Amino acid sequence: MQVDPAGHVTSPRGFLAGAAYAGVKTYGEGKLDLAILVSERPCSTAAVFTRSRLHAAAVDIDRAKLAVRPARGVVVNAGVANASTGERGMADGYELARLAAARAGIPDDEMLVCSTGVIGHFLPMEKLAAAMPAIELTPAGGPLFARAIMTTDTRPKTGAVRFGPYTIGGACKGSGMIHPDMATMLAFLTTDAPVENACLDAAFRRAVDDSFNLVSVDGDTSPSDTAVIFANGAAGGDMISAGHPLASDFEAALRALCVHLAKEIARDGEGATKLVEFTVTGAATPEDARRLVRLLSTSYLLKSAIHGADPNWGRIAAVIGRSGVQLDEAAVAIDLCGTRVYERGRPTAFDPDALSAAMRGTDVTVAVHLGAGREAATGWGCDLSAEYVSINADYHT
Amino acid sequence: MQVDPAGHVTSPRGFLAGAAYAGVKTYGEGKLDLAILVSERPCSTAAVFTRSRLHAAAVDIDRAKLAVRPARGVVVNAGVANASTGERGMADGYELARLAAARAGIPDDEMLVCSTGVIGHFLPMEKLAAAMPAIELTPAGGPLFARAIMTTDTRPKTGAVRFGPYTIGGACKGSGMIHPDMATMLAFLTTDAPVENACLDAAFRRAVDDSFNLVSVDGDTSPSDTAVIFANGAAGGDMISAGHPLASDFEAALRALCVHLAKEIARDGEGATKLVEFTVTGAATPEDARRLVRLLSTSYLLKSAIHGADPNWGRIAAVIGRSGVQLDEAAVAIDLCGTRVYERGRPTAFDPDALSAAMRGTDVTVAVHLGAGREAATGWGCDLSAEYVSINADYHT
Repeated sequence: MQVDPAGHVTSPRGFLAGAAYAGVKTYGEGKLDLAILVSERPCSTAAVFTRSRLHAAAVDIDRAKLAVRPARGVVVNAGVANASTGERGMADGYELARLAAARAGIPDDEMLVCSTGVIGHFLPMEKLAAAMPAIELTPAGGPLFARAIMTTDTRPKTGAVRFGPYTIGGACKGSGMIHPDMATMLAFLTTDAPVENACLDAAFRRAVDDSFNLVSVDGDTSPSDTAVIFANGAAGGDMISAGHPLASDFEAALRALCVHLAKEIARDGEGATKLVEFTVTGAATPEDARRLVRLLSTSYLLKSAIHGADPNWGRIAAVIGRSGVQLDEAAVAIDLCGTRVYERGRPTAFDPDALSAAMRGTDVTVAVHLGAGREAATGWGCDLSAEYVSINADYHT
Repeated sequence: MQVDPAGHVTSPRGFLAGAAYAGVKTYGEGKLDLAILVSERPCSTAAVFTRSRLHAAAVDIDRAKLAVRPARGVVVNAGVANASTGERGMADGYELARLAAARAGIPDDEMLVCSTGVIGHFLPMEKLAAAMPAIELTPAGGPLFARAIMTTDTRPKTGAVRFGPYTIGGACKGSGMIHPDMATMLAFLTTDAPVENACLDAAFRRAVDDSFNLVSVDGDTSPSDTAVIFANGAAGGDMISAGHPLASDFEAALRALCVHLAKEIARDGEGATKLVEFTVTGAATPEDARRLVRLLSTSYLLKSAIHGADPNWGRIAAVIGRSGVQLDEAAVAIDLCGTRVYERGRPTAFDPDALSAAMRGTDVTVAVHLGAGREAATGWGCDLSAEYVSINADYHT
């Protein structure tokens, strides 16, 4: 499946988007911080949310709305996450959705809401209400939408993929507090395929699990993590449900797009200079493989070594050792940028200078074989730079 | 219990120590990298080790020796950890202990061995053997021992405490790859009290669990983590075992010294500029309290915010939310440097400038009340600085 990175959420037919600047997000390029995405017609909808116990108001609101009926639009503000804000936060979130639904001309209960930014601050409702009329909803609005949802992201993250006569489009934001747990940061996907709701939900959960849920920038899960897909059927054809000839193509296309967006998030992690792909093979269970991918991608020491192009594979061994996953010590093997550095319980005689040169590129691979079974997992992370610290020492104030 | 930070491992009677420079550790101040600590008489001994599956050769060697009889000395080298080095690493470790036992004039099997430094390199045995005769074992050697075991530590970490007529002394090293799991980095404690072996073992395990095992610099557990205590009885008196009038004083003194050393490790974490004390109260279980302390002390985002004196308590809420611990959301409260910033589900009206000023000190406190029970835990960590990244991007090469 070929993902077109220039595609976006309005690439599929029948979707409109637009954005405006409400003055909430005071940092970053391209001053947009309020956006709406809406389908011209009713949709099937699937969504996954953070498992954080202290989650944002928007998560409660969207869960409640989706329990009643599918949605067909979402309003997103960047700069304030409206999390840990109590009942006032809930009222503000409902009001923001109501204002956006009125702007888009759809019923209130079909408009979802997402907020991203600093935790513990109330939404500046006057600013947001004042900016709402400036949002122009058009079929060309996908790129504006992708820019408006950014916080410390350095670039928009979008893509589209085709299967059969249909298109799936997507946009997401990442950067910091990225370690999705059963959901993701913010990701919005659209398709003009007619996908039946149960089929959409199952395919989306599996795709999210193998993409966004295996990305980590810093091990911190956000209270706002949300991924939503809208399927509006605007391109016609029979409803796609389990057993439809295009059902597996749909799932493969959706997975390819989610993996593309997930890698974009890792590559643009706060302060990141490299995308790191972690592959674990030979695991006894899928859970072991995923657990080790997660631990490798969150090691301060390994992330620092990769930043310095330092082939210090002992830090990979240290993570394997503390991981608690099943392994056959004599069969454990470690590859760094395709070079075998450890096997049969001892270092190999690799050339550290050549390996360091390979690690100086923008793409680094870490592969671990555990020798304990046949399960595998692949996930993504980034290096840890001094820039990450300065971004996060100064983000709030 | 008053800990004297100027005390050391030879403060208790009947212990000798000394150090030399073998040329293995090529960075850092005060060029010492090989040290011996030994008791003039037989000891009770207790030790706890890393749970890492891919642990260092020294851990296997010391476990095997202690399974047969108590030890009375330890040789430590800094610069190479002799971990992930296979059978050659085991042979090298036994040989290093043999050389040190000969130097100290005690049986081979009473000399333990610890190695700290880079993983996956073999011990330079010729250099170590050549330096061994330069080690002078004296009752004044404690400070030299503490300097020689340092890697990226910026200062030695020692202390001593008295109970009844007895003294307990200690030294440890920390800095990076610090997130002890049922053991610790390297810590060496000595006492001239006559403590029966089972009593020593039980008291030491509890003290380590409430001190070193609640310290984290970077969430990475070392394959070499080891804590050892030698009790030689040189100060005379009845053997202390469970029920002895001084047994509880001994445990309290031991705990106070371990907490002192643990805090020293956190304060001198790689790149650290602040000691951060994390307290969790109102937890449903002791495990919940300890788990949340650990998660708080390892959050990249929270550690960065503390480095920047940024009162961004939303990052504390995010960690609580993702922790999975039991909580009563309406009863959760967060204090930062003694200022209540969050309660009853929403932010308080604190003064961010005054709080930021308080956070600019070298000691920061984070307190979380969960409202779910009566259990509590306290642990220690440090801030995350750009300096941590540069230390660890360049450590190996």
